[in-house]
Amino acid sequence: MQRELNLGPANGSVFAFDVGGTTIKAALIHPDGTMGPVHRMPTPAAGRETPWRLIDLIERTVHTLSPGSGGVSHCATAVVVPGIVDEETGTGVLAHNLGWKDVPFRSIFEQKLQMPIYFGHDVRAAGLAEYRLGAASGYENAIIMALGTGIAAALFVDGRLCVARGKAGEVGHLRVAAHAACSCGATGCLEAISSAAAIARRYSARSGIKVAGADEVVRRLRDGDRAAEEVWGEAVEALAEAIVQISALLGPEVVVLGGGLAEAGTDLFQPLQDALSDLGAATLPLILPASLGEDAGVVGAAIAGRQQL
Amino acid sequence: MQRELNLGPANGSVFAFDVGGTTIKAALIHPDGTMGPVHRMPTPAAGRETPWRLIDLIERTVHTLSPGSGGVSHCATAVVVPGIVDEETGTGVLAHNLGWKDVPFRSIFEQKLQMPIYFGHDVRAAGLAEYRLGAASGYENAIIMALGTGIAAALFVDGRLCVARGKAGEVGHLRVAAHAACSCGATGCLEAISSAAAIARRYSARSGIKVAGADEVVRRLRDGDRAAEEVWGEAVEALAEAIVQISALLGPEVVVLGGGLAEAGTDLFQPLQDALSDLGAATLPLILPASLGEDAGVVGAAIAGRQQL
Repeated sequence: MQRELNLGPANGSVFAFDVGGTTIKAALIHPDGTMGPVHRMPTPAAGRETPWRLIDLIERTVHTLSPGSGGVSHCATAVVVPGIVDEETGTGVLAHNLGWKDVPFRSIFEQKLQMPIYFGHDVRAAGLAEYRLGAASGYENAIIMALGTGIAAALFVDGRLCVARGKAGEVGHLRVAAHAACSCGATGCLEAISSAAAIARRYSARSGIKVAGADEVVRRLRDGDRAAEEVWGEAVEALAEAIVQISALLGPEVVVLGGGLAEAGTDLFQPLQDALSDLGAATLPLILPASLGEDAGVVGAAIAGRQQL
Repeated sequence: MQRELNLGPANGSVFAFDVGGTTIKAALIHPDGTMGPVHRMPTPAAGRETPWRLIDLIERTVHTLSPGSGGVSHCATAVVVPGIVDEETGTGVLAHNLGWKDVPFRSIFEQKLQMPIYFGHDVRAAGLAEYRLGAASGYENAIIMALGTGIAAALFVDGRLCVARGKAGEVGHLRVAAHAACSCGATGCLEAISSAAAIARRYSARSGIKVAGADEVVRRLRDGDRAAEEVWGEAVEALAEAIVQISALLGPEVVVLGGGLAEAGTDLFQPLQDALSDLGAATLPLILPASLGEDAGVVGAAIAGRQQL
């Protein structure tokens, strides 16, 4: 993250948490808009107790980060998580990887921490950060896609984030690849061919070589590995298809790509532009890399949390 | 249209116009919320003079419909048109069928009529009517698709209509049929296989029999015509694909189908439900027929026009 990032003045401090599948990022944002160091801690392992262990960990971290004797009267806490999240009711509706279903996180945090709470979605939070301060700033209609283990997106239309009770932006399940079976039960989902998990899995299946992740496939691609080229090429083509679909439906000015896969740089963006040109859609948005890096989620949580002050 | 429709009381009268490719519908909506008869008149033929002839026709009709001596101080006019429309600036950006490009309709009507003007999009207006008073009322997240000569949709997310400078809702150009060439220059667009125009054209190409329109294909389908069954089946399957894509992206509770094709009734809705089940998407919205009929556009224009009073 750019350390010079400043969110502008606000009425108090915010404790911002971005809960990932393996790591939680936490930071304190001061009233002057500056952000303290981003702390990283392991996410409690998935299981029946995960929500409670997560709640305890966040509660303890808030107290640890608490800025001296200021008390909690001018503080808020923002927590964003993966899966399906209903921002309106503050509920963690479903998170396969973390093993919870219908947990009323916001109410629990409100009782435990006795301060205003924002509870939201990790990809929408990262998208909010890119929309306000990053690559999508200055555009009114923008899609920010997170290309990681899964694929999801934050959709901004007419300057507003689309939520639809947490169901908007599930672009990982756009159907773009007739043959690939997805973990959701359907076939042909974008996520089943273009996610980091799918790229690693499909490379291993094709080459017989086990790889740790998609970044290893990218390295092999650079070394001229034929199977890596094929798997990566199919992933990029499916992503281009998805961008054409999203553009037809929502007419964004810009599509911003973030998440681990976007770190492949020109290995992603150059063939993607070529694939988009080949598809011959009438109008296409600008395609840009995300600019806030892996802390976009915690920055977005902070932006949303400050609205609670 | 149901004659008992009432828009509720407002501060004045609205002259509402729905400009179609061949017919203009016009109605006066009274302050008590009742709507006068819907008048139909031919749309001026496409050409360089179309915008001016249309403006003259609407100006004359406003004066004809004008409710006695009430003057214009408590009146507004609402005009909705097809193509790409920028509601924010009141511009008719592009209408292939009517032959205009970047016409500042709202400003022109304001000068000519000396009253508040709403200038908008026909499909979004019809969608607004279905969302407020028709099949989609009571839902927060709803897609209203107009299946006619072309295919477009009004997208409601979080209770708000998505516009994106007039580019949102171009669902006719979702890519769902790899082989079909579309008039937009791309291949595989929904509109190239599932629109009324495409169904008639594809039936004629397959059977060698010239038909007047898609309704004739539906009649032949009911008589067991093999080519009609094939063409209709492909149209329905592509529509199911599009609905799955829209649902993955926007998570609507309901998809409402209107326009000429939706009048096929169970010949459309039954095979569509079957095709949706076959696609095996994780969650699917409710599929409902539009309920306001062919006057939905003029009702929607009236609703938007009343906000200008």
